[in-house]
Amino acid sequence: MSDILIIGTVALDTIETPFGKVENALGGSATYASFAASFFSKPALISVVGNDFPREYIELLKKRNIDLDGLKIIGKTFHWEGFYEYDMNEAKTKKTELNSLEHFKVEVPERYKNIKYVFLANIDPEQQLETLRQMSKPDFVVIDTMNFWINNKKKALIDVIKKIDVLLLNDGEARQLFNTVNLVKAANEALNLGPKAVIIKKGEHGALLFTKNKHFSAPSYPLENIKDPTGCGDSFGGGFIGYLAKTNDLSERSFRKAIVYGSVVASHNAEDFSLNRLRDLTMNDIEKRYKEFQDIREF
Amino acid sequence: MSDILIIGTVALDTIETPFGKVENALGGSATYASFAASFFSKPALISVVGNDFPREYIELLKKRNIDLDGLKIIGKTFHWEGFYEYDMNEAKTKKTELNSLEHFKVEVPERYKNIKYVFLANIDPEQQLETLRQMSKPDFVVIDTMNFWINNKKKALIDVIKKIDVLLLNDGEARQLFNTVNLVKAANEALNLGPKAVIIKKGEHGALLFTKNKHFSAPSYPLENIKDPTGCGDSFGGGFIGYLAKTNDLSERSFRKAIVYGSVVASHNAEDFSLNRLRDLTMNDIEKRYKEFQDIREF
Repeated sequence: MSDILIIGTVALDTIETPFGKVENALGGSATYASFAASFFSKPALISVVGNDFPREYIELLKKRNIDLDGLKIIGKTFHWEGFYEYDMNEAKTKKTELNSLEHFKVEVPERYKNIKYVFLANIDPEQQLETLRQMSKPDFVVIDTMNFWINNKKKALIDVIKKIDVLLLNDGEARQLFNTVNLVKAANEALNLGPKAVIIKKGEHGALLFTKNKHFSAPSYPLENIKDPTGCGDSFGGGFIGYLAKTNDLSERSFRKAIVYGSVVASHNAEDFSLNRLRDLTMNDIEKRYKEFQDIREF
Repeated sequence: MSDILIIGTVALDTIETPFGKVENALGGSATYASFAASFFSKPALISVVGNDFPREYIELLKKRNIDLDGLKIIGKTFHWEGFYEYDMNEAKTKKTELNSLEHFKVEVPERYKNIKYVFLANIDPEQQLETLRQMSKPDFVVIDTMNFWINNKKKALIDVIKKIDVLLLNDGEARQLFNTVNLVKAANEALNLGPKAVIIKKGEHGALLFTKNKHFSAPSYPLENIKDPTGCGDSFGGGFIGYLAKTNDLSERSFRKAIVYGSVVASHNAEDFSLNRLRDLTMNDIEKRYKEFQDIREF
């Protein structure tokens, strides 16, 4: 039985960075998130791909014990084409072909409905809401999003945020959504909407956790060679909820550890294109880097 | 007897931020640095002001036991006028009147020459070099700089960096000076020039310490109300060397603590204009926030 439900996109990505290029590589928010979560727990995935989706990618996900019963196969796979400039801070979109994602409607398989941990990875907030409607009564819901939804479906997004436990977003999105440059103010505005915690992902600057009376600042990992940051936010979220589902401890203390585990997986992910680094990652690599994170923040 | 020599600017600042405005307020790199250092040690200052420099500012520095024998009084005080836009990330200069700073030549008073700790705060790198030439044999030299000198006196700046122990600079300057977006690469390039340590100040994102085989990431403090970031980098540097001079411990471990003390002073400084917050700051406030820094990075 799976212990985390993850809904999001599964994509074929064509990506160029200053360090190389991949075409039709495995990508998508649910892909990265479930792959990252699979190091700690058993994720079940809800998404859609097309008939062109390579068999080997399905096999790769299955090998990580990701339950794919919620993965529909219709038409042509969602395709994203983008690039990163020299500073690699922001993905620039060249082309988005929604394909089968365009008319995708969530249908939660019966045997997923009692899963207690839910990760609403980056996808249309209306589908995130619909997922919650179909679930029985999850214990713990985490949501991630992106600037596109803040621009185009802000009302639906705010509606989801009011129903969940932890909001993940990056610093630019936090500033945009709450209309302030100050991240502390943005986090407080977010907490006022109802979530127990807000996590602001800052890429190379680490991550911040805000709860009602406490604050945690997770260090970043000093990466000298970043090949492709695609999927780092999703991997972070997957590692975060994966660790929590494994321990079943939802204290603020446990959130802190989960954030560091999320950061560990994300930092590995940036070292290569697509899932190329994560597919070979071991729990040993993860625990080793977790200890490094402990050392680099010690004073 | 003073235990830190600090050379830099003493200025009258006219500054506007989204949260207010001050005219001819006390400022300058040596001012902030020596004020911050004075919480831990006894700084001696080398700089220049004009006959227009208000008596009350002199009194304010004297009350902190800052030795002002190295402060020349000639002509008119250096005046900087600048503003910060909404995001307060970067000071924009409206006007710079060098005045007596233009022809300022360092002359280290005889009784300063044996001081063991030296902070070459932000000023013309040729004056930083000249200071080192006149000193007997300092044990420990820290240098800070700014983009203006990277643009205009890069060769002299590199010459100073080759002679010192710790290089302080902010993230933008590190990227500019070493022509890379990657801060780990920039830090390694800096270490190759000779310093034992490089500290990269990242403002709201904390600070990074790079030494030969170790890395430290200091958290930032979650400030909800930042009134004026002017002098935060200088206060950081002053707090850093002040703590080291007090403990006389130059281990990497001690650097980490010194960075957090520097961050504590700098975070207070941002809470008000000019020296308005630091003039009322107590060691009690400092120790209290130091403990908060410990808590926010714990996992």
